Amino acid sequence: MEAAGIELVLATSKHNVRYLLGDYSLFFAHFDAVGVDRFLPAVGYPRGDSGRAFAIASELETWQHEVSPPWTSTVVDGCQTSAETVREAGRLIDSLGLAAATTGVEKAFFPAAALDELQRAFPEARFVEASGLLEELRTIKRPDELELLRDASERIVESMVAAVEGARPGTTTSEIAERLRSEEVSRGLDFEYCLITAGSSLNRAPSQAPWLEGGILSLDSGGNLNGYIGDLCRMAVLGEPEPLHVQLLGEVQAIQDAARSAIRAGVRGAEIYEHALGERNNCRHGKHASFVAHGIGLVTHEAPRLTDKGPIRYPASHAERPLEPGMVLSVETDLKVPGVGFVKLEDTIAVTDDGYEAYGDGARDWITVDV
Amino acid sequence: MEAAGIELVLATSKHNVRYLLGDYSLFFAHFDAVGVDRFLPAVGYPRGDSGRAFAIASELETWQHEVSPPWTSTVVDGCQTSAETVREAGRLIDSLGLAAATTGVEKAFFPAAALDELQRAFPEARFVEASGLLEELRTIKRPDELELLRDASERIVESMVAAVEGARPGTTTSEIAERLRSEEVSRGLDFEYCLITAGSSLNRAPSQAPWLEGGILSLDSGGNLNGYIGDLCRMAVLGEPEPLHVQLLGEVQAIQDAARSAIRAGVRGAEIYEHALGERNNCRHGKHASFVAHGIGLVTHEAPRLTDKGPIRYPASHAERPLEPGMVLSVETDLKVPGVGFVKLEDTIAVTDDGYEAYGDGARDWITVDV
Repeated sequence: MEAAGIELVLATSKHNVRYLLGDYSLFFAHFDAVGVDRFLPAVGYPRGDSGRAFAIASELETWQHEVSPPWTSTVVDGCQTSAETVREAGRLIDSLGLAAATTGVEKAFFPAAALDELQRAFPEARFVEASGLLEELRTIKRPDELELLRDASERIVESMVAAVEGARPGTTTSEIAERLRSEEVSRGLDFEYCLITAGSSLNRAPSQAPWLEGGILSLDSGGNLNGYIGDLCRMAVLGEPEPLHVQLLGEVQAIQDAARSAIRAGVRGAEIYEHALGERNNCRHGKHASFVAHGIGLVTHEAPRLTDKGPIRYPASHAERPLEPGMVLSVETDLKVPGVGFVKLEDTIAVTDDGYEAYGDGARDWITVDV
Repeated sequence: MEAAGIELVLATSKHNVRYLLGDYSLFFAHFDAVGVDRFLPAVGYPRGDSGRAFAIASELETWQHEVSPPWTSTVVDGCQTSAETVREAGRLIDSLGLAAATTGVEKAFFPAAALDELQRAFPEARFVEASGLLEELRTIKRPDELELLRDASERIVESMVAAVEGARPGTTTSEIAERLRSEEVSRGLDFEYCLITAGSSLNRAPSQAPWLEGGILSLDSGGNLNGYIGDLCRMAVLGEPEPLHVQLLGEVQAIQDAARSAIRAGVRGAEIYEHALGERNNCRHGKHASFVAHGIGLVTHEAPRLTDKGPIRYPASHAERPLEPGMVLSVETDLKVPGVGFVKLEDTIAVTDDGYEAYGDGARDWITVDV
């Protein structure tokens, strides 16, 4: 905060409020709309003065906070809307003598109306972007965070195995996705999404498309445990895989394993890509392959950033910086082979001093389902 | 829109994007964070010109839109972040010749950074609040929306009955809440929350508190079906209810039934309160009673607004206006009796021409669980 000249951080995103408090509203875990406004939680953290940090939530969190009190000395549980949150935050900022402070906010997670109101209330304050700073805090995971990511990953893979088990020729991808959702929830996960393909289709949305005998199936799903997201992809086949299918998954495994072999503390992030892309060149179907690796935690794509390519176009902050123990990576390789199908593995890898630990690392070969 | 002088609506909230398109991203159904930015869907609707409406989503929605194409003539599925959405929206606004238009936005659901960027791109445009206008559109539900609300309500009540069935003396409120979550999900619902009390406690957060023999239990839960929220509360007892418990739930039922008896098209919204509060005065424990009634649909508290009292403090737009067929109300009465416990019913009531229809109206008496 000092380097950024920030005197107060006012966090309002779900992930950073959860990170700073260690907990989040159970009531507003999914939705946030209330009338024509929205619930807006907030955590205020004055630089170098955690004793005067504050938390703002709604009346509904009163009970949750009674059961499990937040660590901040000030907790205000009476703000159901962003208008109320901003009024209360203003009162607290004033009482801290920070009316003219440089205040770090998350501008993608601060409603326009609420930030306008705060700026009007404190015309001398300067509101600057603090999302990068907050993300940096989250880059290295604590042991309890690693535990949650491990558990989430394991439960997702178990759920995938269970979800395909009951399938029969003709079961639709919607039905399997729905079954997966139930399996994850019954294991205590908060289900997020399922991308799924069946047969030779490259369309990954759940649909009425049937899974047929001999057809391959990709299951890519995210689910969280206390906000910490597991995100993995596994492959199944209804019957036995054809030799070409075995070959393709073998190539995906080879690329994934090449990437993994590079991972340990001290290695530059870019080396992971160098290993993976080197192996891709050895693969018969390498021209169909996509590879991506990125940090994961409370957000599906977060620091460390190993590349500025791929779906999330951010600066590659860790391409030339060394990996550190406690970083967690999602490593993904897919082959989109026209006429054959979509073959993918996605693994969760925690960086350790002397290598890595893979979370939820089962079922990386073909999951075969008896016809 | 004409009355409000709005030439273009640019909706960005989950509920209004879903309302205008009839669908929402499966991938971003719960979370929206992506890196240090967020996914921001958008629907643009130029006044009187639905043929030029547009929808903006991320690359991940490409597959979903292939399976089920949106009705708008323009669909852009390449925006993973709010920065990209705003750039694309700007391009489309420009191409529609609306660079200087009065544009209605939802300022509580428009990230500050994104609205700043849009205002910079279009210095002559005027961005005004359109949340009220969009909410008004949603006030009267279509038959397909009513069907979803009916289904969601029924499945929640079924889930509640199933969730308490397996309980034994000592089962905790956390365990029951978790069981309810699974039961709702296995019925196709997207679980939102569970507020729960056991015994004489008035704390409604799931916790390690045990449900004991003879103890009462309140279960208040929301879950949605395609975004449409069912929100009901039912009462259970482990064993048989005591006479006082029977008396208390009887009073809650009497207040609820008084409110319901007022409901039909043409009646002023305030009459519902008048009936309920009149009955409360007849109740022995009336001084412990709270009553609230509000619209429900894609948002848990939405129009019609029958009062400006209660947890959501908005103007009571429908206190003096007549109810109309297709409005859906959530009607809630609770008794918080110190030393005895929390006794509540919450019902979902659709207004019809000649009265009302109650959705998920089972189990309004004590659900008894064998010890």
